[in-house]
Amino acid sequence: MVKIDLNCDLGESFGRYTLGLDAEVLPYVTSANIACGFHAGDPTVMAATVALAEQNQVALGAHPGLADLVGFGRRKMQITPAQAQADVQYQVGALAAFSKNGKLHHVKPHGALYNMAAQDYELARGICLGIKAVDPTLILVGLANSQLIKAAQAVDLPYAQEIFADRNYLADGSLVPRSQPDAMVTDETTAVQRTIEMIQTQSVTAIDGQQVALTPDTVCVHGDGGKAVAFVQKIHAALLAAGIEIAAL
Amino acid sequence: MVKIDLNCDLGESFGRYTLGLDAEVLPYVTSANIACGFHAGDPTVMAATVALAEQNQVALGAHPGLADLVGFGRRKMQITPAQAQADVQYQVGALAAFSKNGKLHHVKPHGALYNMAAQDYELARGICLGIKAVDPTLILVGLANSQLIKAAQAVDLPYAQEIFADRNYLADGSLVPRSQPDAMVTDETTAVQRTIEMIQTQSVTAIDGQQVALTPDTVCVHGDGGKAVAFVQKIHAALLAAGIEIAAL
Amino acid sequence: MVKIDLNCDLGESFGRYTLGLDAEVLPYVTSANIACGFHAGDPTVMAATVALAEQNQVALGAHPGLADLVGFGRRKMQITPAQAQADVQYQVGALAAFSKNGKLHHVKPHGALYNMAAQDYELARGICLGIKAVDPTLILVGLANSQLIKAAQAVDLPYAQEIFADRNYLADGSLVPRSQPDAMVTDETTAVQRTIEMIQTQSVTAIDGQQVALTPDTVCVHGDGGKAVAFVQKIHAALLAAGIEIAAL
Amino acid sequence: MVKIDLNCDLGESFGRYTLGLDAEVLPYVTSANIACGFHAGDPTVMAATVALAEQNQVALGAHPGLADLVGFGRRKMQITPAQAQADVQYQVGALAAFSKNGKLHHVKPHGALYNMAAQDYELARGICLGIKAVDPTLILVGLANSQLIKAAQAVDLPYAQEIFADRNYLADGSLVPRSQPDAMVTDETTAVQRTIEMIQTQSVTAIDGQQVALTPDTVCVHGDGGKAVAFVQKIHAALLAAGIEIAAL
Repeated sequence: MVKIDLNCDLGESFGRYTLGLDAEVLPYVTSANIACGFHAGDPTVMAATVALAEQNQVALGAHPGLADLVGFGRRKMQITPAQAQADVQYQVGALAAFSKNGKLHHVKPHGALYNMAAQDYELARGICLGIKAVDPTLILVGLANSQLIKAAQAVDLPYAQEIFADRNYLADGSLVPRSQPDAMVTDETTAVQRTIEMIQTQSVTAIDGQQVALTPDTVCVHGDGGKAVAFVQKIHAALLAAGIEIAAL
Repeated sequence: MVKIDLNCDLGESFGRYTLGLDAEVLPYVTSANIACGFHAGDPTVMAATVALAEQNQVALGAHPGLADLVGFGRRKMQITPAQAQADVQYQVGALAAFSKNGKLHHVKPHGALYNMAAQDYELARGICLGIKAVDPTLILVGLANSQLIKAAQAVDLPYAQEIFADRNYLADGSLVPRSQPDAMVTDETTAVQRTIEMIQTQSVTAIDGQQVALTPDTVCVHGDGGKAVAFVQKIHAALLAAGIEIAAL
Repeated sequence: MVKIDLNCDLGESFGRYTLGLDAEVLPYVTSANIACGFHAGDPTVMAATVALAEQNQVALGAHPGLADLVGFGRRKMQITPAQAQADVQYQVGALAAFSKNGKLHHVKPHGALYNMAAQDYELARGICLGIKAVDPTLILVGLANSQLIKAAQAVDLPYAQEIFADRNYLADGSLVPRSQPDAMVTDETTAVQRTIEMIQTQSVTAIDGQQVALTPDTVCVHGDGGKAVAFVQKIHAALLAAGIEIAAL
Repeated sequence: MVKIDLNCDLGESFGRYTLGLDAEVLPYVTSANIACGFHAGDPTVMAATVALAEQNQVALGAHPGLADLVGFGRRKMQITPAQAQADVQYQVGALAAFSKNGKLHHVKPHGALYNMAAQDYELARGICLGIKAVDPTLILVGLANSQLIKAAQAVDLPYAQEIFADRNYLADGSLVPRSQPDAMVTDETTAVQRTIEMIQTQSVTAIDGQQVALTPDTVCVHGDGGKAVAFVQKIHAALLAAGIEIAAL
C-alpha cells in the first residue's frame, strides 16, 4: 500500500505572541516540525508544543531556522556552512531536551535556511553534518530532488523527500519562486488532486508541461489559520479515500 | 586522600567579541562550565569550546543563564520556576548536542540565575527539574548549603557543593553580597590558604567570626584575564602541595 | 469643564506576530503609547503605527520597556538607574524618528519598568533624566502619586498622573498587586462609574475603605482584544455623558 | 587647499564585551561613526561613546547596521528597501537622542548593509529615505561612485564619497571583494601613499591598471586594535605632511 507522511510546522508562538492552531491541526498530521527559538518559539513554548505533539502521538521533529526572529527566518542570510552546522546542532539539541526520551525523529530546516540549502550543496552539507552530530538516525526532511537530499546521501544521513501541495514546480524539480505569479496552486481541489497524483505516479507536471520524477515521502501542510486547517482535513480525507496510507516516516 | 574539583566558566565569547583565556586556564581546571547562548556564547563558540574542553579532558558542563546578553546574565530577572525549568532544559540540551557522545557531566547555573536560585527554593527546584528532564545523572553545581543544594536533594538529582576562594561568607553560609565592601577576599595568599582550610576542615570562618560547616566538592575559579589565570595556577599548585587531589566530580 | 485624556498602548506587533486592534481603538483614545522595539514592536511596525496614530490625530507617545521580548517587558529586571536612563533615551529617540516633525508628546514607561519605577525613586529619576535629555518638553505619564511623579517634579519634567479604570487601589495610592485576588475591578459598569468618580472627586476609595487623593490627568485603556475595545467605547461614551471632556494632555 | 575627512567606526562594545580603542583613535580622526545597537553597541555604550566623541570635538555620525549581533552585521541579509528604511530611521533616531543638541552630522551604513546598498539602488534608496526622514541635512557617507551615492543624489540628500586606504579597487570603481586574494593593500606605506594620490589626483588605479575617477571626501580608518591605531597616526601625519587639510565634512 502506498504511504505518505503529512508534516506541519508547529510551536511558532513566542512569549506574548500566539501563532498557529497547533491543537486543531495535530489530529490530521503524522509529523510535527517544532520551532527551536531562532526564528520562532521559545523554551516555554517548546516545552508545551512537545508535550502536545507527544499526546497526539505524532513524530517529533526539530524545525531549526535562521537567527532572525523579526524576519521569522524567512530572509536569506549569508551564513557559512560551519555556522549552519553549529546553529542546527544547537537547535536540534535544544528541542530534543524537551522530548520524553531525549530523542527526536526528524529535522526539517525552516524558511530561508531550507530554501537556501535546497540550492546550495555546501550549506546543505553543513546542515546535514549538524544533524548527524546530534543523532545519526535522525531523518532529514528536505525538498525532493534538492541539494538537501544530495547532501544527506553524501554524508549518509537518513532523509525524506518533501513535496508541496500548494506550490508549482519548475522543470528542474525546484519550486516556482514565490516572487512569480504562478508560484502557488491556489485552487484547493487541484492542489489535493495533484498531490495524490504526485504520490501515485512519483512525478509532477512542471509549469512548462514537462514531467519531473519525484519520490514523495512527506507532504508539507500548514496550521497557521482556520483555512489552512480546513485544507489539512480535506487533503487528509482525500488521501485516505484514494487508498493512500497516512503514516509517519 | 582529600579531593577537590576546580571548575571554571568558559566559552563566554560571542560572535565578533572575544572574552576569556580559555586555552590558558583549561590545563589547570578539572571542570568546564560552558556558556549556552543566553547570557554569553553562541553556537559556533560553543562548538569550539566543547572541542577545546574535550581535548583538555576536563569534565563538560553546561552553564545556563538568563536571557540577557547585554547584562551578561548578571541582572536579576523575575522569571517563574516553570520558565527557569524550560530555559535550563533548552540550554543544557543545546550544549549537550556539541559533545562527542551527546552527554554532559554537570550543570552550573550562571550569574543572577545562580544567585537568585541559591536563595529561592522554588526557582532552584525549577532549575533542578529542567536538568533532570534532560539527564537524571547530571550533577548540579550549586552554592554550598544553598537552596540549590536543597532542591537537588529534594528532586533526587546528583549535586556538588561549590565554594568560592575569593569571597567572604556570612554566618548563614551565604556569600557576602558584592555590594558590601568586604565581599571579596582580595589578598591572593589569604584566598588560597583559606580555600585549603575550607577543604580540610569542612568549614569556613564567616565575617562575624562564626564557624560555618561546609562540604566543599568544587572550587570556582576564573579565566577571564591574565591575573585570573595566574591565580588558578597558584591555587592549583598550592592544593597539590597541601596533599589535596584535584579531580573532576 | 473637567478634562481627561484616554491613553492606550499600541504598536505591540512584532515581525510575523500581530497583536492589538490598533485601528479599532484609535478613534476612541486621545494618546497613543507606542512600543519601541525592546519589549514589543519593531522598526517596520513602529513606522506603520506612528503613521496610523498621526492619521487619527492622537498625541504621539513613546512606550519604552525592558529589553525582554520573550517576557513582553513584564518581568522585573534589576537594571541600574543609568541603564534605565540610556535605555529610555534610546527608545524615545528611535520612536521620535518616525514622527512627521521628529517630535513626540509624551512618554509612558511599559510594564515592569513602569511598575518598578513607581516604587523606586532612583530608577524613576533615571527614566525622567533619559526623557529630558531627548526633549525637556516631553510629558512623563506615570502612576498617580508614585515615585515616577515625584522624580518628574524633582528634575522639572512635565508629567501627567495616570489612573486605571480596572484596578483596585491600596491605601497608599499604589495598585493592588496583580498577584492578589482583588487586584482587578472586573465589573465593567463599576469600573466606568468609579473612573468618573475618580475624575470628578479627585480621589479613589482604596480596598480598605480609605479615601486616597488623586489628580487624574489620564486614564489607561487597552486595545488588545475585542472585549477591551468594547470597553473603551463604553467608557468613552460614559465620560462624555458625564460631562467630562476627553482631550489629549 | 585640498581637504579630507578621516572617519572611524566607534562604539562597537556591547554589554560585558569591549571592542575598539575608541579613546586612542579619536584624536586622529574628524568623524565618528557610532554603532546603534543592531550589529554592535548598546544604549549605555552609545551614551558613553557620544560623550567621548563630543569631548574630542569630532563630527557625530550614526553607523546603522543589520539586526545581526552574532554576525556583527557582516552577513548579507535579504531585507526589503522598506525594512532598510525603517531600520535606519530607528537607529539614527536612537543615536541622535544621545547627542547634546539632538542632532547628528552624518550617517554611514555598516558592514553588509553598506556593501549590499553600494550595489543595490533600491536598497540604497531605502536607506537614504530613512536618513532624510529623520533630518534632511544629514550627510550620507557611502562608497565613492556607488549606488549609495546615486541614491543620495536622487533623493536630494547631502552625501560624502568614501575611499578606503587599505582596499584594492576594480575597474568599475567597486572594491575587490574580500574573498579574493588581492582585496587588501597590505603594505602600510603603499596604502598611505596611494590614499594621498587618490585625494590629489581624484582617481585610483584599479587592479587591472585602469584609472578610475573618484571624488574622495572621506577616508575610512579603523580603531579596533593597536596596529590599526598606529596606522591612523601614520596616515594622519602623512596627509598633513602632503599639505592636505584634515577636517570634518
